[in-house]
Amino acid sequence: MNTKNKILFTPGPLNTSIKTKKKMLVDLGSRDIDFLKINKKLFKELLKISNANNYACVPIQGSGTFGLESTFSTLLNDKSNTLVLTNGVYGDRIIKILKKIKKRKKILKFKPNELISTNALEKIIKRNKNISHVALVHCETSTGMLNPLNEIALICKKYKKKLIVDAMSSFGGIYIDIKKNNIDALISSSNKCLEGVPGFSFSIIKKETLNKCSNNANTLALDLYDQWMGFEKNDQWRFTPPTHSIIALSEAINELKKEGGIKKRNKRYEKNYNTLINGMKQIGFKFYLDKELHSPIIVCFKMPSKINFKIFYKNLSKLGFVIYPGSVLKENTFRIGCIGNINTKEMKLLLKGIDKTLIKMKIKKL
Amino acid sequence: MNTKNKILFTPGPLNTSIKTKKKMLVDLGSRDIDFLKINKKLFKELLKISNANNYACVPIQGSGTFGLESTFSTLLNDKSNTLVLTNGVYGDRIIKILKKIKKRKKILKFKPNELISTNALEKIIKRNKNISHVALVHCETSTGMLNPLNEIALICKKYKKKLIVDAMSSFGGIYIDIKKNNIDALISSSNKCLEGVPGFSFSIIKKETLNKCSNNANTLALDLYDQWMGFEKNDQWRFTPPTHSIIALSEAINELKKEGGIKKRNKRYEKNYNTLINGMKQIGFKFYLDKELHSPIIVCFKMPSKINFKIFYKNLSKLGFVIYPGSVLKENTFRIGCIGNINTKEMKLLLKGIDKTLIKMKIKKL
Repeated sequence: MNTKNKILFTPGPLNTSIKTKKKMLVDLGSRDIDFLKINKKLFKELLKISNANNYACVPIQGSGTFGLESTFSTLLNDKSNTLVLTNGVYGDRIIKILKKIKKRKKILKFKPNELISTNALEKIIKRNKNISHVALVHCETSTGMLNPLNEIALICKKYKKKLIVDAMSSFGGIYIDIKKNNIDALISSSNKCLEGVPGFSFSIIKKETLNKCSNNANTLALDLYDQWMGFEKNDQWRFTPPTHSIIALSEAINELKKEGGIKKRNKRYEKNYNTLINGMKQIGFKFYLDKELHSPIIVCFKMPSKINFKIFYKNLSKLGFVIYPGSVLKENTFRIGCIGNINTKEMKLLLKGIDKTLIKMKIKKL
Repeated sequence: MNTKNKILFTPGPLNTSIKTKKKMLVDLGSRDIDFLKINKKLFKELLKISNANNYACVPIQGSGTFGLESTFSTLLNDKSNTLVLTNGVYGDRIIKILKKIKKRKKILKFKPNELISTNALEKIIKRNKNISHVALVHCETSTGMLNPLNEIALICKKYKKKLIVDAMSSFGGIYIDIKKNNIDALISSSNKCLEGVPGFSFSIIKKETLNKCSNNANTLALDLYDQWMGFEKNDQWRFTPPTHSIIALSEAINELKKEGGIKKRNKRYEKNYNTLINGMKQIGFKFYLDKELHSPIIVCFKMPSKINFKIFYKNLSKLGFVIYPGSVLKENTFRIGCIGNINTKEMKLLLKGIDKTLIKMKIKKL
């Protein structure tokens, strides 16, 4: 079975350092002191890097969607009414979750190439007094759009609405001040900009809020209040934790600190991003979004009608480059991620690979 | 941070081979062909080793409890009425899940040191015509008790009840013929007798049954029908999979085959078990269960009043041996696992370590 190391230009799982992966070469007892210490330190660090004083960092087994569903299941009750702001697939996923777990919601929907409008948000809040929560995706990974979190947070503060942020693909790559933005809960995962491997996600929740959330959730596995109480009781996960992923993230956080923290990492991603868009423009590719709406996380490109994505993808994959399919409905797009343990060097290699692939596919001009 | 390799005598996470762990030294794209191939082969193998023709193997991110909750959420509807047979903490967990997800249930409870009685089961089935499903834990990990699965399966066949089996700590270590036992769904995880690392669990479900289960689940993340449909559509996980855990299990399955399959592995575990109980008896420890109720998976010992578990545990841990706390209510017990990538050699080392620890604790006679 071919499992050679390719370079991943994906939104996660992504490239992690060899040191991070090597940390997984140990089996730890999930209730042993060695492992519990690693956890305690890790969750503290996650709070520290996002200025989340008086918040709890509660991890949950599974992917980011597990983190989202557990957070909404736990924080919302029968009286809640959540306004979901969406301009893409991941915003829509929040709506799907609320539908499935039967929590009340209101939807403010924008086009996938349109920024969330704070004016529209303020209007709808003024008109609907019973809105209790506002939920949004920070970086909409389906397009790479960065939504105006700080401005939205200001409005939520003004009207006393609780704010829940899906920061899956931005946390660790874009600095978010959780306390200053008065965020009620922020969800992210181990395998995005923190550059760990997949296995769990985590929710950073205001303690004051979480304290009132016992018995909200109609689920045993995804009840974040009970999960929190488990840690409070004996520092242990209630159910088997992904021990190897956790020790890997703990190393990845060390590396984040060594790099100089989130702001420094953001600069590296910005460089990756600039190398990518300049190179792709030169080749002739067009962006799906207006450039000022981009994030340095992932870029969505229009797929030229001359190119068959599957063949393009396969050829690049053979050369050792993994790109990402598009997920904008009704438009042919593809995506290239700028995050993970990569540098402008890898970006330049990818651009050369794309050149080579287009020649191989006999596509002369885009 | 001290993360040296200790030997784990735990029910999982447990010791895995270095080869299995080394497979994790690669980052795979979760939608890349290399990874999808590994998945497809892995799920096929899991069906093959349990004689599960016409079954689907549907994995779910997270621990075994996630596998259980997703299976019950997906398979049960408003008309279902599940009879839960329980004689321990893990049987009780099934009850907790059904309560949380609001599915109808009936409970047949036995003492933790008592086998599930097939007579009692038959009686309660005869008296309650509206029971649709029977659920039980195969190896009750809290005591090590092996419940009479084949006999219970016969009764379920006779009365046409659907059978759901939590085989978390037995699958891969004790041969289970899924088809012959007409099991509707069996749940297990990557990090028990299959000797992989934690990160996901899986459910082996009759296709005929699963086919009728769309929209039963009040959850997005834990909907196994939708998860199955995802794989049927494009061989992909709906949400980020634990890529490293999956590639590790795929190697662990290779090693299971090299060992000679489940029956050969069972013999190794039996040897570990026999070495353990003979040695512990000699030291003076007493079993919690009658010997004939034991499984070769894990053994529950009475904790002598002279010994403080925490001190005993810490001393053993310092010597490099990780044992497991008890979880029988109202009784002071502790547990030692016989499973994982260990042999009689490791068992003998543990027994020596226990001797040494008792001397250090100045405990002369038990």
